[in-house]
Amino acid sequence: MRVLGIDPGLTRCGLGVVEGGVGRPLRLIDVNVVRTSADLPIAERLVTIERGIDAWLDEYRPDAVAVERVFARSDSSTIMGTAQASGIALVAAARRGLPVALHTPSEVKAAVSGNGRADKAQVGAMVARILRLDAPPKPADAADALALAITHVWRGGAQARIEAAAAAAAAARSSR
Amino acid sequence: MRVLGIDPGLTRCGLGVVEGGVGRPLRLIDVNVVRTSADLPIAERLVTIERGIDAWLDEYRPDAVAVERVFARSDSSTIMGTAQASGIALVAAARRGLPVALHTPSEVKAAVSGNGRADKAQVGAMVARILRLDAPPKPADAADALALAITHVWRGGAQARIEAAAAAAAAARSSR
Repeated sequence: MRVLGIDPGLTRCGLGVVEGGVGRPLRLIDVNVVRTSADLPIAERLVTIERGIDAWLDEYRPDAVAVERVFARSDSSTIMGTAQASGIALVAAARRGLPVALHTPSEVKAAVSGNGRADKAQVGAMVARILRLDAPPKPADAADALALAITHVWRGGAQARIEAAAAAAAAARSSR
Repeated sequence: MRVLGIDPGLTRCGLGVVEGGVGRPLRLIDVNVVRTSADLPIAERLVTIERGIDAWLDEYRPDAVAVERVFARSDSSTIMGTAQASGIALVAAARRGLPVALHTPSEVKAAVSGNGRADKAQVGAMVARILRLDAPPKPADAADALALAITHVWRGGAQARIEAAAAAAAAARSSR
């Protein structure tokens, strides 16, 4: 299973692709960060992020996409841009019919480090260990994107199956 | 000048197209609301909204798009979905190279009613009067989308020109 993890952000949007399965070693395919300048209008910044995500979906053809779930209680100065970027990520995946899952920051931290309140250094170190890298990926957004993808593989796509079943049930209800 | 106003929302996304110019009468071209079910996964809801906006951009070919600026201080239970929908609207317009402007709710209320704290009924009544409609458009999201488009025409695209100049200056700076 190949998963694209996306850590949404307007200034830095982390993208990380890993391949593997539950109980099998995970392998880093690629990791990068799409950056956009705060000097540009927001619409152009979002288009740049969309193009970056679309290019990776074309190139790496993941089986699923995992996006960080954004909460309104986060730092309010950047939260709107983060939410907008997450919307772009969700649509880019869903438009291609790819399963999309949202994982919270604490779910991701717990999955990779065993501690839902792990700090960035700990997450980076665990991502490096899990993927057998020489050093933690930089910047933190890159490590977070990989941690999301790892989390998604390890949760075994169970959440995606539940959501697909719920969507199918909802579709059946609304077509009655 | 033909403007598409978008009042972003996940459950109801208002779309309104008006045509006219500063000092000339405004005309309603069309108004509607894209609705998505809360039973569906968020990614699918956003794709439905994207399709609705794209269909209107294809059909009405506006010269500019006006989107409501969303603030983090709004009702937090729906704010993330609203922000995500607004990101979709911004990208749909910018992807086509259309000028996009953001107007705040109080700018819109002030533009159509002279009062930045006007209530929904007042905004609906003024939209009906300005566009010479028999009754205020329903639901409020439809009226709000038209109010956004009206505001954009009346502000004379001045904001769009300022933003374009700022973007050009920024591009010139970064290419140096």
